[in-house]
Amino acid sequence: MSAKKNFYSDNVPGAAPEILAALVAANAGDTAPYGADPATEGLQARFGALFETEVEVFPVGTGTAANGLCAAIVSAPYGAVYVSDSAHVHDNECGGAEFWSGGNARSIPVPGSDGKMSAAELARMVDAALARPAEVPPRAVSITQGTEASTVYTLAEVRAIVEVARARRLWVHLDGARLANAVARLGSTPAEATWKAGVDILSFGATKNGALTADAVVFFNRELAQSMRYRRRRGGHLFSKMRFLSVQLEAYVANDLWLRNARHANLMARRVRINFVLVALPQPIWDGLVAEGYSFSRRGAPGEGIIRIVCAFDTTEEDVDELVATAKHYAGVNAPPLPVRERAG
Amino acid sequence: MSAKKNFYSDNVPGAAPEILAALVAANAGDTAPYGADPATEGLQARFGALFETEVEVFPVGTGTAANGLCAAIVSAPYGAVYVSDSAHVHDNECGGAEFWSGGNARSIPVPGSDGKMSAAELARMVDAALARPAEVPPRAVSITQGTEASTVYTLAEVRAIVEVARARRLWVHLDGARLANAVARLGSTPAEATWKAGVDILSFGATKNGALTADAVVFFNRELAQSMRYRRRRGGHLFSKMRFLSVQLEAYVANDLWLRNARHANLMARRVRINFVLVALPQPIWDGLVAEGYSFSRRGAPGEGIIRIVCAFDTTEEDVDELVATAKHYAGVNAPPLPVRERAG
Amino acid sequence: MSAKKNFYSDNVPGAAPEILAALVAANAGDTAPYGADPATEGLQARFGALFETEVEVFPVGTGTAANGLCAAIVSAPYGAVYVSDSAHVHDNECGGAEFWSGGNARSIPVPGSDGKMSAAELARMVDAALARPAEVPPRAVSITQGTEASTVYTLAEVRAIVEVARARRLWVHLDGARLANAVARLGSTPAEATWKAGVDILSFGATKNGALTADAVVFFNRELAQSMRYRRRRGGHLFSKMRFLSVQLEAYVANDLWLRNARHANLMARRVRINFVLVALPQPIWDGLVAEGYSFSRRGAPGEGIIRIVCAFDTTEEDVDELVATAKHYAGVNAPPLPVRERAG
Amino acid sequence: MSAKKNFYSDNVPGAAPEILAALVAANAGDTAPYGADPATEGLQARFGALFETEVEVFPVGTGTAANGLCAAIVSAPYGAVYVSDSAHVHDNECGGAEFWSGGNARSIPVPGSDGKMSAAELARMVDAALARPAEVPPRAVSITQGTEASTVYTLAEVRAIVEVARARRLWVHLDGARLANAVARLGSTPAEATWKAGVDILSFGATKNGALTADAVVFFNRELAQSMRYRRRRGGHLFSKMRFLSVQLEAYVANDLWLRNARHANLMARRVRINFVLVALPQPIWDGLVAEGYSFSRRGAPGEGIIRIVCAFDTTEEDVDELVATAKHYAGVNAPPLPVRERAG
Repeated sequence: MSAKKNFYSDNVPGAAPEILAALVAANAGDTAPYGADPATEGLQARFGALFETEVEVFPVGTGTAANGLCAAIVSAPYGAVYVSDSAHVHDNECGGAEFWSGGNARSIPVPGSDGKMSAAELARMVDAALARPAEVPPRAVSITQGTEASTVYTLAEVRAIVEVARARRLWVHLDGARLANAVARLGSTPAEATWKAGVDILSFGATKNGALTADAVVFFNRELAQSMRYRRRRGGHLFSKMRFLSVQLEAYVANDLWLRNARHANLMARRVRINFVLVALPQPIWDGLVAEGYSFSRRGAPGEGIIRIVCAFDTTEEDVDELVATAKHYAGVNAPPLPVRERAG
Repeated sequence: MSAKKNFYSDNVPGAAPEILAALVAANAGDTAPYGADPATEGLQARFGALFETEVEVFPVGTGTAANGLCAAIVSAPYGAVYVSDSAHVHDNECGGAEFWSGGNARSIPVPGSDGKMSAAELARMVDAALARPAEVPPRAVSITQGTEASTVYTLAEVRAIVEVARARRLWVHLDGARLANAVARLGSTPAEATWKAGVDILSFGATKNGALTADAVVFFNRELAQSMRYRRRRGGHLFSKMRFLSVQLEAYVANDLWLRNARHANLMARRVRINFVLVALPQPIWDGLVAEGYSFSRRGAPGEGIIRIVCAFDTTEEDVDELVATAKHYAGVNAPPLPVRERAG
Repeated sequence: MSAKKNFYSDNVPGAAPEILAALVAANAGDTAPYGADPATEGLQARFGALFETEVEVFPVGTGTAANGLCAAIVSAPYGAVYVSDSAHVHDNECGGAEFWSGGNARSIPVPGSDGKMSAAELARMVDAALARPAEVPPRAVSITQGTEASTVYTLAEVRAIVEVARARRLWVHLDGARLANAVARLGSTPAEATWKAGVDILSFGATKNGALTADAVVFFNRELAQSMRYRRRRGGHLFSKMRFLSVQLEAYVANDLWLRNARHANLMARRVRINFVLVALPQPIWDGLVAEGYSFSRRGAPGEGIIRIVCAFDTTEEDVDELVATAKHYAGVNAPPLPVRERAG
Repeated sequence: MSAKKNFYSDNVPGAAPEILAALVAANAGDTAPYGADPATEGLQARFGALFETEVEVFPVGTGTAANGLCAAIVSAPYGAVYVSDSAHVHDNECGGAEFWSGGNARSIPVPGSDGKMSAAELARMVDAALARPAEVPPRAVSITQGTEASTVYTLAEVRAIVEVARARRLWVHLDGARLANAVARLGSTPAEATWKAGVDILSFGATKNGALTADAVVFFNRELAQSMRYRRRRGGHLFSKMRFLSVQLEAYVANDLWLRNARHANLMARRVRINFVLVALPQPIWDGLVAEGYSFSRRGAPGEGIIRIVCAFDTTEEDVDELVATAKHYAGVNAPPLPVRERAG
């Protein structure tokens, strides 16, 4: 069998060619270490232009580091961060909030549906906690945009959560590991999707959408950035040759590459909200696809038979057509697998 | 004036061509994320061969992360890590030991000379702490090899420290940010410089000697590795596209590149122990060199006028000759600046 | 109106006379500080006899400290502690597990009913977490005996949870803030209620049942005790004049005082499981009782009108009769308020 | 031989009779738990009057807890606390600063003499750290008053340290485990010894000077108190029956008991600065005293033969006379042992 496109995750491809080229170009010559290089310093203006406001940008190696640093900062000196009960920051980072804060933060899951937290439930839970002096005091809310369920919060939904937060003096963090896919889906500007909707601090994802090993924390509320340089350094995310991260981010946002990549990936995962699909797949089809060399990630409870099909910036129409044809072959029918979220809709 | 070689740090160059080439080659095709790729899995055997024993290797983004993870592991469930009083792990990582351990570790500086801790002083301090139930209990010693003073512990010196440690049931960590330079200087095998001398766990540096953004933790004592995968993940050093780190490490140790690079850098910093020189430079010479476009890093107390001149894997003889000629020009004399450590010797 | 017995909490009375007398007697003469006194040393044998096995006992000032220390110990080097979703250790101690462990622990609530966690749900949640490498690894389960809902786990229920734990290599902690009330209700021996049922480590409550300011951590699994003396000291619970805590505990268990006190308090809260009652009280009765000088604590969601009536070791039959008569007076009826849990049963 | 007064520590006696009486009186009747009782609430005014300014007072169980809480607060969100190199907070509390801050604080010893830190050395070290971005950032200084060497900082010496701190925006903590002895020796008012000299936050000791199990944190800078109620609760120092601590503190400061006790203890340790003496004692005298039933604590390095003789609030002239006579007997000479500090003077 021929090599099959891997639909397991948006982390399986390498880098977009533009980003790899930028990294190779950055290799020549000497530069100041630890982020004092022109590329890193230039990111401030670059991201300021992108978001139409003054920001502070700090490149880090991974999204987990970005989220952990943000959790530590918004919970300081200690307190609770409310997250969606399906959020990556809650159950996919080995207790990152607790770790990065030195036990000063607790991550609290808020029920919702379709991967999104309910603003009403958030208000209820925070109010209950505020009424009890022995509870961990609420300090922040963290919104995952796009969600783990391949959905996107509308701007109105973001604003509803922000309103709950503001009224209770909570900071607002956005986990934007797939921000590009969300912005592409929303058709909003980056500013509208973030600070104009009330976001204070952003985990800006790039790796899942074409970078090699670079994400960033973006501070719209620049007061929150005060402790960042120390926190990042001791966490081992102030890279000595920081330029190699910065040029990835630079190339990522240059010429709208990030949105072009995201639009493409979203398109490949047609009929769904962002760049992946959750489908309930009969076992014979699954077995057949795996036998042909395909890879996917399981989701949901064991026995539910739900798999996640992820399209990345480099997934082609041919890849998708071939996948669908192969699935049909094993299904022995003409109907394609039905996306779970569509059925629910 | 022409562009001058930058002598500020071994972090100012880009990557060695072999390593950049490996990274570019790794960009093609899809691979499993989060370290389940062939390059990462192959590192185990590669490093096993390099060190002539079974090891567990975990790539991380920076030396600070490697050191912090090691400090958390060797101090668990809590306790003190004894380090040289000039050690990078103590005063250059913003309290990494305390952070990575969640306040369960304390880093304690041990006096010594020439950048090395004194084994006798270590024994005295540990014994005093063990005698006092209210002290942080000693758990580990961390040796920096090569040191911040451009010196190298002899294997006998390492063994003397290990003997103190073993007799008191302390783990032994080696901060090998410049391990290659030290091994090249010692003329020992990597095994002799580490586990054969009693080292349990190693911060294996690569970035300062030709990698882009990759270092690693190497466990000789594999029981200590049990908690590593969780700790690394929550600390944001389990990269989703881990292959981009692993291939750097792979290329770094292939064909002895790491030792060739280190030998070269050591050679460029002739007359000194590893790859840099600390010199007391008269102000007019300093001013002249800076005016010509040179960069250095200051060391010692303000007013001492000590600068650090670092040679990297890509420093050429011409770079060094030009530097010396320029310095002589501003000195108005024929004698080159005298290395501080040589004078002391 | 006359002074009314306060039904707000079992923390409102002072100490039982026997315990106060022991404390006053302990005041005479000099003794070694920091727990090297005869009273503290004698506790080991005393608790060994009480529990019919060798134990290690560490007095601490509060139940929150006992629980926090236990959480840090059973989660080390890091990991999750599963608790009932109504557990005091989860939502009444300001994030104690996270704090005492330095961010190495996460407290995870397990649904159940009647204040008890469901063993089946525990198994399901732990298995799900064990299957996911990015989750906080499960390390321990914490059982609250008696519960926040005034119920008591049967020994079979405890054993069912222990079985789930043992099969998954989790430690078992018992939060026994009201252990005496539970043991009195169960009619078991202290040994049967704890280590014979599989408990490794116990928060032994005394303050709610007649002590002034003393609780203790009891280790049945004595290996777990290794780090305790350091942890307790740095947490500020190694009292310099430790005898004043130890004699409270000594008097508390002498001559079965702890069980006599608990049986009495349980009896006063007749018809319920341990020593308090949760009742849905119409507003006019509540208002009337408060006007008469009574105090209670609210429970449940706002608007549910549920109050908690707590009987302590010093509550008399007359106190209860007077309360009931007063409530009837304001109810204008003859029927006493119906305990919530009875109705549910 | 008859029972000998124990000179081991000021923690060997029980409580002063006035304080025990207050505790016994507090036992009667019901009160609100967790510090909502009249005694605890009354402390605010009581300590406000004592210090001639509005303060916030939080009783805690031990001095270690007071110091740990203060370290966490003054270092937040993270940073270094500079202390005397002989300070109890540094080497006698098992890493309390690191623990209470969740790894966000580092305790850094400052050299000095006679138990006191040098203001000049403090300035030098803080300035060096501020100049290096990779260092733990300086946040606070902690002064131990009186010192571990039985000396007292003059108010001018305190002000000199405060000046260094203020110029560098550091908070000032005073560890007042023996504040009463120091104030008695200085002849100053409590206000002059603390906030008027620039102290922001105080560990107010009582246990060593006549209380049973109560110390307190006093905030002169009341903004720093914001996080205290959460921090104290999760650390297990919000006692449910808090009144039993509060009445100790109340009785301690009523009618100048604390200063009367301290003056007495200081007087018993005549010729020295506060209430204890460090003496170099020939082995035969030591052996003889121990044979007679005396207890002391060793100080200094092994072999130096230095012992600490502590006088407490209840040490009598007869106790001291008998000690001196016994020592002379074993010395076979008429001269009393010479206090170490006097000799140095």
